[in-house]
Amino acid sequence: MVEPATDTRSASKVVPLLKDELDIVIPTIRNLDFLEMWRPFFEPYHLIIVQDGDPSKTIKVPEGFDYELYNRNDINKILGPKASCISFKDSACRCFGYMVSKKKYIFTIDDDCFVAKDPAGKPVNALDQHIKNLLSPSTPFFFNTLYDPFRDGADFVRGYPFSLREGVPTAVSHGLWLNIPDYDAPTQLVKPLERNTRFVDAVMTIPKGTLFPMCGMNLAFDRELIGPAMYFGLMGDGQPIGRYDDMWAGWCTKVICDHLGLGVKTGLPYIYHSKASNPFVNLRKEYKGIFWQEEIIPFFQAAVLPKECTTVQKCYIELSKQVKEKLSKVDPYFDKLADAMVTWIEAWDELNPSGAAAKSNGKA
Amino acid sequence: MVEPATDTRSASKVVPLLKDELDIVIPTIRNLDFLEMWRPFFEPYHLIIVQDGDPSKTIKVPEGFDYELYNRNDINKILGPKASCISFKDSACRCFGYMVSKKKYIFTIDDDCFVAKDPAGKPVNALDQHIKNLLSPSTPFFFNTLYDPFRDGADFVRGYPFSLREGVPTAVSHGLWLNIPDYDAPTQLVKPLERNTRFVDAVMTIPKGTLFPMCGMNLAFDRELIGPAMYFGLMGDGQPIGRYDDMWAGWCTKVICDHLGLGVKTGLPYIYHSKASNPFVNLRKEYKGIFWQEEIIPFFQAAVLPKECTTVQKCYIELSKQVKEKLSKVDPYFDKLADAMVTWIEAWDELNPSGAAAKSNGKA
Repeated sequence: MVEPATDTRSASKVVPLLKDELDIVIPTIRNLDFLEMWRPFFEPYHLIIVQDGDPSKTIKVPEGFDYELYNRNDINKILGPKASCISFKDSACRCFGYMVSKKKYIFTIDDDCFVAKDPAGKPVNALDQHIKNLLSPSTPFFFNTLYDPFRDGADFVRGYPFSLREGVPTAVSHGLWLNIPDYDAPTQLVKPLERNTRFVDAVMTIPKGTLFPMCGMNLAFDRELIGPAMYFGLMGDGQPIGRYDDMWAGWCTKVICDHLGLGVKTGLPYIYHSKASNPFVNLRKEYKGIFWQEEIIPFFQAAVLPKECTTVQKCYIELSKQVKEKLSKVDPYFDKLADAMVTWIEAWDELNPSGAAAKSNGKA
Repeated sequence: MVEPATDTRSASKVVPLLKDELDIVIPTIRNLDFLEMWRPFFEPYHLIIVQDGDPSKTIKVPEGFDYELYNRNDINKILGPKASCISFKDSACRCFGYMVSKKKYIFTIDDDCFVAKDPAGKPVNALDQHIKNLLSPSTPFFFNTLYDPFRDGADFVRGYPFSLREGVPTAVSHGLWLNIPDYDAPTQLVKPLERNTRFVDAVMTIPKGTLFPMCGMNLAFDRELIGPAMYFGLMGDGQPIGRYDDMWAGWCTKVICDHLGLGVKTGLPYIYHSKASNPFVNLRKEYKGIFWQEEIIPFFQAAVLPKECTTVQKCYIELSKQVKEKLSKVDPYFDKLADAMVTWIEAWDELNPSGAAAKSNGKA
């Protein structure tokens, strides 16, 4: 059996990389006791807590953490009518945190994720690994068989073109999960006891042109490079679907990263995922997604962005048009979603005026 | 430091999978003492030894192994004028072994490769892992973040399309190397002491549309599915280039697998690679390849095979035409290589008449 690290205090002598350039975004409906185990790793950073559900409830945050907290009333007040693009009663609400952050990097984690141990029994500083992933280049154009060539003790293998060895900037670092794997409801139902115990000591770039299922449980990204594409869609309350928020963001993000020449990595770091969600509830949330994805994925695989799309915002608006044009026939939901994608970008640019201006002046 | 397994006798109770359906192909210029360490794993199988260099030299094979051995005189006798397509004084000669085999599967290994240990210290039965890789499907159309979904304890993650979960047949299993990594001469020169000590416990499919540097040191494939594409080119004696034999085969193979809907896996198993080859000698062999690959790789990335190419042979002949048309301008060598590709297929079909007939009757 795989177990979480139960004593992380000894790990407290870490140097907090990018301390003033990274926010940790946590969506939650409960008290954040899970932060105790993360204290040595997260305490130096600023937290953005997005409270989902009943705004009158008080969320307790352990002493000593520096945080700002937004509930639904705050979101409505800050975004006004544009708050409609932020999901309610679904962890998709976390993307509001990406939008209000003023930092270059985001790390987002679920409140049922604990500190994993590496095979030597050492607590894994997930945030530190994500930062290393983001600060080193990606290699999307050719596969390196020894995985991340920028890691200590590794390099590009024989036959890797020298012209591609500088790599490209990394926009996304997708981390994995020990214990409860991120399975869909049907797989949960069929394999209720399956646990992920395999620690794969690798980070790799997902090749250009290849889509992947991006999970939002343990995820970091460069907000300046890709932030506006990290919209978690319309899920939960009043919507016909849930549990596809991160998938939607992942498909859009990957298509845009491929277009803009940015890298997406997956692999390390692991977190310890403690609780399997209820597969029956999940099935209800997921079942439309399970058949819609059979059409959505080919849509994204075929999506081409014109070369005039030189910023993430322009790419995203263009994608919203293609969603409206090609996916609305799957379900009227996609018509609404396409509109929400536009609203999201308008809200993003309103809250991040310099970025919006700089990008459209600089590159248009 | 990473070390080879020095006692593999205890491992002798393995069940030899596919005993009568797999040949082990070994190119060599020396006595095959290295087989002693592989005895518990290889002894039940038939070996095809391709002796390179001086045919008057006698190669000693340890007692108890079942083998056939071909030297240059044998190759010339069997292939007649078509023997020109088989390289001399280069391990590229190994592909002659693929051609004379009558089995469905091939495993090929270099004679400086020993048995690796897994992190628990257990000797790794590389052949057994290759067979498992070949017998389970590949998933080239969408990335699975928990790696091989067919392995025990793993599955497809949330968001993986159900329509793609059957996978496709696996044609190639590319294994890796502990200790001496497979670096090119410039990297060897810059990092003479680098050793690969990282055991990454993963097998994964290389996505469709992504090329990779295929190393011939520790490689298995399904001869019926992809054999005729496993041509190791013209290298060594009388040729302007060496050490690109496996790379050439890898590029051709991957393009053809992508076209025919076949899978290519990389990762486990590891072997222990004992000797770094001389980087100065390697540089002399490689230097043309190092700049040619900057044009060859974009050529293969852009290569499209028409849908009439329904067999490996047809695909390969079509590729040879494209090589002649598009790479001859890089160097006249590619004109010769394109001709040799055709000769290789003619020789293959001559030695494998039923396969050639079956394939062109069955699918044309």
